[in-house]
Amino acid sequence: MAYDKFDKLVAERTTQWTEELSDYCRIPCETAQLPELKRGAAWTADRLRKAGAKIEIIEKPGVAPLVVGEMGSGPRTLICVQHYDVQPAAPLELWTTPPYEPAIRDNKLFARGVSDNKGQFLIRVQAAEAYQDAIGPLPIKIRFLVEGEEESSSRHFNSMLQERPDLTAGDGSLQEGGGLDAQDRPTLICGVRGILYVELSVRTLNYDAHSGGASLYENAAWRLVEALATMRKPDGTVTIDGFYDDVRKPTDKQLARLKTVPFEEAKLKAIYGATRFVGGKTGGDAQVAQLFAPTCNIAGIWSGWTGDDAKTITPAEAHVKIDMRLVPDQDPEKVERQLRAHLDKRGFNDILIKNWGSEHPYWGPVDAPIVDAAERASTAVYGSKPLRLFSSPGTAPQYQVCNPHKLPMVAIGYSHPDARVHAPDENVRLDLMPKAAMVLGRFFDEFSRT
Amino acid sequence: MAYDKFDKLVAERTTQWTEELSDYCRIPCETAQLPELKRGAAWTADRLRKAGAKIEIIEKPGVAPLVVGEMGSGPRTLICVQHYDVQPAAPLELWTTPPYEPAIRDNKLFARGVSDNKGQFLIRVQAAEAYQDAIGPLPIKIRFLVEGEEESSSRHFNSMLQERPDLTAGDGSLQEGGGLDAQDRPTLICGVRGILYVELSVRTLNYDAHSGGASLYENAAWRLVEALATMRKPDGTVTIDGFYDDVRKPTDKQLARLKTVPFEEAKLKAIYGATRFVGGKTGGDAQVAQLFAPTCNIAGIWSGWTGDDAKTITPAEAHVKIDMRLVPDQDPEKVERQLRAHLDKRGFNDILIKNWGSEHPYWGPVDAPIVDAAERASTAVYGSKPLRLFSSPGTAPQYQVCNPHKLPMVAIGYSHPDARVHAPDENVRLDLMPKAAMVLGRFFDEFSRT
Repeated sequence: MAYDKFDKLVAERTTQWTEELSDYCRIPCETAQLPELKRGAAWTADRLRKAGAKIEIIEKPGVAPLVVGEMGSGPRTLICVQHYDVQPAAPLELWTTPPYEPAIRDNKLFARGVSDNKGQFLIRVQAAEAYQDAIGPLPIKIRFLVEGEEESSSRHFNSMLQERPDLTAGDGSLQEGGGLDAQDRPTLICGVRGILYVELSVRTLNYDAHSGGASLYENAAWRLVEALATMRKPDGTVTIDGFYDDVRKPTDKQLARLKTVPFEEAKLKAIYGATRFVGGKTGGDAQVAQLFAPTCNIAGIWSGWTGDDAKTITPAEAHVKIDMRLVPDQDPEKVERQLRAHLDKRGFNDILIKNWGSEHPYWGPVDAPIVDAAERASTAVYGSKPLRLFSSPGTAPQYQVCNPHKLPMVAIGYSHPDARVHAPDENVRLDLMPKAAMVLGRFFDEFSRT
Repeated sequence: MAYDKFDKLVAERTTQWTEELSDYCRIPCETAQLPELKRGAAWTADRLRKAGAKIEIIEKPGVAPLVVGEMGSGPRTLICVQHYDVQPAAPLELWTTPPYEPAIRDNKLFARGVSDNKGQFLIRVQAAEAYQDAIGPLPIKIRFLVEGEEESSSRHFNSMLQERPDLTAGDGSLQEGGGLDAQDRPTLICGVRGILYVELSVRTLNYDAHSGGASLYENAAWRLVEALATMRKPDGTVTIDGFYDDVRKPTDKQLARLKTVPFEEAKLKAIYGATRFVGGKTGGDAQVAQLFAPTCNIAGIWSGWTGDDAKTITPAEAHVKIDMRLVPDQDPEKVERQLRAHLDKRGFNDILIKNWGSEHPYWGPVDAPIVDAAERASTAVYGSKPLRLFSSPGTAPQYQVCNPHKLPMVAIGYSHPDARVHAPDENVRLDLMPKAAMVLGRFFDEFSRT
């Protein structure tokens, strides 16, 4: 099939698509900001409707709506798992331009959510729309599941899907995200890590004490530090009792395949100005860890006086937020129980655990026909074969969507390693935007033939 | 000497003094808030002037002024080391009534600074004024040194005093604070602990990373936790290399005297709702630790996402504020060097140390004539002997004032263990206010005769 007309239309629409994306990113759909999330859901539904999708909005009290959009028809059904919510933009002072006032610099568009995941969602809709306008009816059915709780572990997504098994019926799933590696080589991601997000809190006193009493009064911050010190070694090894029990070891076949994937160590370090990786890992060890090693990450910690100058108190309470990225076959509920038992065993039964959300890992087969289809589409546009990756280092609710029918999955997108997702100055590269659409248009055809 | 007229005047003025104290506490003289500190200094100078003191204000650019007030004359000069600055009132939501809107409940006056140290300063001035009005000219010279940086380790006080040796010439020092123990027994404090207040900061990345990269990118919060874990044991022992080198061991005589001082363990725990003391210490061990053990206290720690809900980042930077209470003969500058060497030795040379202030410990002799004088005055009012304490668990700039001439010192005041100094709902007991004035009036006479 010739894609000349399609590619021409994509090129013509890139400016308009950039404006649409800017418009979308002006809505501060931050986790837990329900009114803004509802505005984001409405914008999402309108845009899908404009592209010809049939819309259904699934709402629960107090929950960001799930927008379901269906378009096209054909022998295959592709489930696009997407989200319109974004990570909090704070710390605001580190943004070059305000996070919700999209700005173009160096042919990049900067805004919170522009890459994760508004840009990646929108390009799927825009590509499908351009396909219809340039080529004709879509050769597959695409079902968009666009949720508003992805950045908070999709905590209601699963129950919404369980009530509606029709939504997870299909032949394969197109994940959120996807993109290029540090050398601009396109990648195809075939799995996601799971997550357990917890907050540990401890209170040792009724209220902060004058620190002159520190010889006697227990300091909540010290108590938390002591507990944390039992949970992880400086080399990144998680020391929570039993944490690795269910971790599937990489197979020889996986390791052999991984060796064929380039690992741009110097570039990966340069992006964040890192002088070394955790535990001094390097080369193949670092690459294996990035995919196969679950983590225990402090996302935030706070206690006592955090203002300017000096305040001399013994803090009464302390908090830490921790996310653990999980790999097959870890189960977040089991890991939470392991953490509770670990703390109790060491006398930390005064430390409370609040669960802020969790997700199972999900790795689809890397040699599935949907991945082959994506490879053909990507190769046609980029001129060289994309890299097949077992898993994203991140998390997405693929388990909820794919596990009921063990669907294969792939991510095709235009994110890049310096996209600063979850960080200040999040961005997309505008040169990559039309390419992603060109790959997606071809993928719809390729997938219809699997 | 009969004090009938004096005691009567004290009783008559208690309401007016409470109103004055409320007025004083409406000025939010928080550390580093220079305009408010200057208002506080002006109020302080006006009040001293009204009592007949000769005022000198010592100013340096960017520094809270030192208010010097002299009143009275006689064979003895008493140096009253006081301050008008207060600890930050945050967290505001934990105050029953706003910290700078003084309020009376249960015969207590609540406000930030009401006990530490505005109330304690004011009662000294009010007592001297009442003495003059009821009895006649003061029998001693009182030199008030009222600074505005006490809560931030008096960082310019020392250099101000070094330029003016006349200010530290005298026969004894009346410290800030002072008060009653948990059984309402008056105490006489004869020393203070020193302090080293530092902020440790570490940066591992140029900006926060998506926590999907936690297998590779170093987490600043973890790095700080790892460093902290090397600095203190859960039982409170400080494990910074060399930290105890200069700690003077309690003598048998000191320990024998300490045994005569009651230790209200249950009451001390009840004040803060503590179920145990650090390291499970109890009885005499806890009492010895409270006085003789230096501390390493986390006053605040922060890194990454501290907002609501879940944000999944690997923080690029982390900070902790630490105050160490020092005992004779520890030297804060040496302890800071020890900390630097300790961190460097363990590979933490990327952790920066910022010094927010420091003070030497100072213990005067517990059997000095000034303490005898204070004991006679206190006994005359309370009917039983006060407890002589080697040291406050807290810090005050006594070293700067007393060390040049090795002056003896004592603290006489009306603070109480539930005064919540440095904490929300700071308060003074109004029943104790006139008693403190009555002791002080008698003390002026007793001290003149030493």
